[in-house]
Amino acid sequence: MNVVEQMKKFVEPKSVAIFGVSRRPNVYHILENLLSYGYQGRIYPVNPNATEILGVKTYSRIADTTGEIELAIINLPRSLVPGIVGECVEHGIQSIIIETQGFADAIDEKGKQLQREIDTLVRESHVRILGPNSLGTANAFTNFSSAYSKLNMVKIPVGIICQTGTFFHCFAQSLFIGKGIDLGNACDVGFVESLEYFEQDDETKVVALHIEGVRDAKRFIAAAQHIAQKRPVLALKTGRSEHAAAAAQSHTGSLVGKDEVWEAAIKQAGIIRADDIDELDDLVRAFSLLPPMKGKKVGIVSISGGLGIIGIDACHRFNLELAKLSPITMKRINELLPSWLSTGNPVDIWPAHMVVKQSLTKVLTTTIDAVLNDDEVDAALLIWNLWQPQTYALVCQLLPKLAEAHPDKPLIGCFFGSNAEEGRSKLEASGRVAVFHTPDRAIRALGRMARYSAFRRGL
Amino acid sequence: MNVVEQMKKFVEPKSVAIFGVSRRPNVYHILENLLSYGYQGRIYPVNPNATEILGVKTYSRIADTTGEIELAIINLPRSLVPGIVGECVEHGIQSIIIETQGFADAIDEKGKQLQREIDTLVRESHVRILGPNSLGTANAFTNFSSAYSKLNMVKIPVGIICQTGTFFHCFAQSLFIGKGIDLGNACDVGFVESLEYFEQDDETKVVALHIEGVRDAKRFIAAAQHIAQKRPVLALKTGRSEHAAAAAQSHTGSLVGKDEVWEAAIKQAGIIRADDIDELDDLVRAFSLLPPMKGKKVGIVSISGGLGIIGIDACHRFNLELAKLSPITMKRINELLPSWLSTGNPVDIWPAHMVVKQSLTKVLTTTIDAVLNDDEVDAALLIWNLWQPQTYALVCQLLPKLAEAHPDKPLIGCFFGSNAEEGRSKLEASGRVAVFHTPDRAIRALGRMARYSAFRRGL
Repeated sequence: MNVVEQMKKFVEPKSVAIFGVSRRPNVYHILENLLSYGYQGRIYPVNPNATEILGVKTYSRIADTTGEIELAIINLPRSLVPGIVGECVEHGIQSIIIETQGFADAIDEKGKQLQREIDTLVRESHVRILGPNSLGTANAFTNFSSAYSKLNMVKIPVGIICQTGTFFHCFAQSLFIGKGIDLGNACDVGFVESLEYFEQDDETKVVALHIEGVRDAKRFIAAAQHIAQKRPVLALKTGRSEHAAAAAQSHTGSLVGKDEVWEAAIKQAGIIRADDIDELDDLVRAFSLLPPMKGKKVGIVSISGGLGIIGIDACHRFNLELAKLSPITMKRINELLPSWLSTGNPVDIWPAHMVVKQSLTKVLTTTIDAVLNDDEVDAALLIWNLWQPQTYALVCQLLPKLAEAHPDKPLIGCFFGSNAEEGRSKLEASGRVAVFHTPDRAIRALGRMARYSAFRRGL
Repeated sequence: MNVVEQMKKFVEPKSVAIFGVSRRPNVYHILENLLSYGYQGRIYPVNPNATEILGVKTYSRIADTTGEIELAIINLPRSLVPGIVGECVEHGIQSIIIETQGFADAIDEKGKQLQREIDTLVRESHVRILGPNSLGTANAFTNFSSAYSKLNMVKIPVGIICQTGTFFHCFAQSLFIGKGIDLGNACDVGFVESLEYFEQDDETKVVALHIEGVRDAKRFIAAAQHIAQKRPVLALKTGRSEHAAAAAQSHTGSLVGKDEVWEAAIKQAGIIRADDIDELDDLVRAFSLLPPMKGKKVGIVSISGGLGIIGIDACHRFNLELAKLSPITMKRINELLPSWLSTGNPVDIWPAHMVVKQSLTKVLTTTIDAVLNDDEVDAALLIWNLWQPQTYALVCQLLPKLAEAHPDKPLIGCFFGSNAEEGRSKLEASGRVAVFHTPDRAIRALGRMARYSAFRRGL
């Protein structure tokens, strides 16, 4: 079985056995979660003290089951784990997720001893292990997750590979997960196998990594470089400082390395590095929702001169340029303005609405369309206030249409006011527009997109 | 009348005249806004075509009114403004807000001419002007705002001085305003007068500035330095790049300057500079909600080792230190953990809950209390997931109590999961805890607080 076929059994299993299914309801109930997601595969709960749990036939031992089992999920006290792994191997199960912690991550000798027992059991077989100390996998497209905690899965084209399961509950403002692989201690399956899975997966458009350390840096870089030629790979590399690197080593037992080395390697591989969780979140949304940004020139339409100035600063900070709008574009825009005002880029259109009393529909449609039509513009940013219900409704209706009419350039928003969050969710649900909290974050995301396009062109 | 008395008429007027009150309802209706806020002062709408608007007696001309008027608000087409200013001066009104745009900010000669007419009218009097091109002021404590757009005012101890009214609608996640002064073009009232107002104002604990440029840098720095000795002054200085500085100059006609000069001046004045809108927002919440952070040592309690590592990186990045927890603290914490795990700082307490099955109440209370009790700790950060309703309710209940029991140290949170936003609002409403989107932003805010304390100690 090749790596991708094996990884499919972890991420898209057609049948699962679950060890550690409580007869009592509790908040960490893998079986209950699977039933609530509507998972359609076969489920074999294993519990020596039950014949049925939540209406699902339950087995005393794995040996009692018939039918192929693609994946075993083990969530039992650590001392029981090697024995169960042995039974799974014997039963012919080739993919095992171990969620239990207390192996390489424990401070006692027993944890290391238990890990060695597991290693010995699987060494001579074709069995692969994901974990231990892992939530396993998540897949919104098949309603499957091995995580004991309940996830909010949505079919977004984003694959996450992480070294802590907390990323399954997502971060910053992204509140859901498309596909995920939590490597945990990564005693066996690691970044390389997971990257290979996402490289061939057509449901994934963007891959996001949370990296503390990797075992084989060379293979990791090669795999990342390969996939980065096909789709964007984003990375939050943590354990940057010496103290944090030491903690990372004990957290997952992985090899870390000096941050400067990582910085260079990541750049060489064409991976887009996020500085923090907010940025990873922003980039996931930018790359999954928007068309590529071909050049470096931005057109900004703003509710205020003051926020436009912040937009200019941001272009300077994130290595983008303000587009020089063509005379035709400027003519269309200036027709909306009072004669005694002129605008450039950023386009300050508040006076068109407030002084000349043009309708907001006309003002927003005309200016954004003019900016996106301009050959000098590679992407457009709208900075606006959604405090009024009418404005909110209007922006949510207009922007997806304008994005649809200009499918070759990113159209992004930065909104404030009391409806900003709601507007963001609604606009991003259209699948055509990405929205950011501040002009700086909006422009930063565009800057990374422009950089990635340059990488794809070999620059 | 001294400056503070004059500024009180702008921010806390007991009576106002409004020029430019439409007889028809519209979304930019100053009178309607004032009535909806419940403003208790006397209101004199002036409109030659009405005797009553929205149930309020209306005057044809200002000369027809009797009784003292502390403030006039003008929101009329620009060509009418000098005439109305003249009538106000003649009537003895000493404070005038001009919301109209098209003066120094216009490209035509007429705008400059109209501004000169206004300057001439007020030069020889004691009249002061706020604006033009300004939303004026906002004051949640007296339910007053001159802004034509409807504001969400809440009695928070934060004063904003800005050069664009969009900050009245707040920024990033802060969705309300306590007190605000929009300088607009700042033809007269500027940062110095506004800082002097906030220096003596006991309802204000933190002052936030949005600066594009100032007219008299020396006086500005002196005023800021003075108030910074008493309460924190935060600043978002925009127009950093050359292109943006040019735009700032034309936006408000203000003098700008090289960013390096600003950087040095801001530091010397003890102003805390925010790099972007997100940071200004974070700092406003940190400084207004939390007690001072006396030293540089942070204790972190985390749901996951992985997020703890991100916390360590952040301490390194923002010039703070991880506290070395005392043996007593470690003993209290380790009692909750399985014998084969040990923790340090960050305290990873997930195993206490997940492996040892301790209640979350006990785990969170014991660890946070132990950390805050430790003499080595200057502030505590809890990184947690609020995905379950029970967890959400528990954290919202526990944290304010723990903060109340340790009123001398900041207790902050960083939450993720689907209830994170709701938890943030609820916790911050307690007035004792501040919550940030990511560990980086949480630690960055603490870093700025520690820096400010050092400044206050003369370091």
